[in-house]
Amino acid sequence: MTVHTLSVLVENRPGVLARIAGLFSRRGFNIDSLAVGPTEDSSVSRMTIVVNVEETPLEQVTKQLNKLVEVIKIVELDDRDSIEKELMMVKVKADVNNRGQVVDAIALFRGKVVDVAPDTITVQLTGNADKLRDFVAVMEPFGIRELVQSGMVAIGRGSRSITERAKPLAVPVEQPA
Amino acid sequence: MTVHTLSVLVENRPGVLARIAGLFSRRGFNIDSLAVGPTEDSSVSRMTIVVNVEETPLEQVTKQLNKLVEVIKIVELDDRDSIEKELMMVKVKADVNNRGQVVDAIALFRGKVVDVAPDTITVQLTGNADKLRDFVAVMEPFGIRELVQSGMVAIGRGSRSITERAKPLAVPVEQPA
Repeated sequence: MTVHTLSVLVENRPGVLARIAGLFSRRGFNIDSLAVGPTEDSSVSRMTIVVNVEETPLEQVTKQLNKLVEVIKIVELDDRDSIEKELMMVKVKADVNNRGQVVDAIALFRGKVVDVAPDTITVQLTGNADKLRDFVAVMEPFGIRELVQSGMVAIGRGSRSITERAKPLAVPVEQPA
Repeated sequence: MTVHTLSVLVENRPGVLARIAGLFSRRGFNIDSLAVGPTEDSSVSRMTIVVNVEETPLEQVTKQLNKLVEVIKIVELDDRDSIEKELMMVKVKADVNNRGQVVDAIALFRGKVVDVAPDTITVQLTGNADKLRDFVAVMEPFGIRELVQSGMVAIGRGSRSITERAKPLAVPVEQPA
């Protein structure tokens, strides 16, 4: 199994997410991570989809995706040539006795305390998957009460934007007529 | 139209996203923002869904969602009682002549430069929707080449976790038998 990160530009219309999720689901692919947000163009949304599949069936899926009229562009981002970040908020147990230890550990990761209660601290942290995993491992001994995470967000390095990327997908892009 | 933020705990299985997105789509609701990520329990994923709807049909949707076996819990988060954050990466035009101006503006928002090319700078920024909107407005005169954003991620204030929230949804939760 190989991890693939797809950046998909889609028209911002009701139903497009359901159609895309349905395509993946019918192939039995589990989407590891999904982030859907606006772009610089309000009529266009951008999805960052992380899937764990063999190459051949992924090609079939991207081919199918390209047939959807709402799909404007699909690019597979290579992790060596892109920046990948996730956002996490974690509520950690911390009372007056160990709050200092928790805060020190948060500072090591450059986390940001966003809420404090008598027995918990809520932290915001941004980074790649490894950094987030390490942070969770360091917080676990204190006790994690709650954890919420965005999907992965990825952008190519350098000055080219997704709409200018010359490197095509392995599959020739079939534009709807 | 009212904006609602739903935190949905679901079993981490293929197809669950498609079923949930399908439910929203059949009602004609556009999902404004969606973040799907892991939780402190590897068998459970958490979705933060932002929808713009009237109250009555949203209740119908949450009722339907609760009928899905994969849905473990749904909580509507009130923005006065929760922390809402989004992650954005923006590629901005900046060359040797105006790079200083761009970097100064990024610093005002406590953005983090994650990539530099001869004619662009890529910035990572985390904050609420207002902060992100203001940042985009300040970057626009320089020229935005590319923008990618996570969905909104939300967590309740205070020490209670989502699984302990006493305040139920307006709709009685119907657990599958």
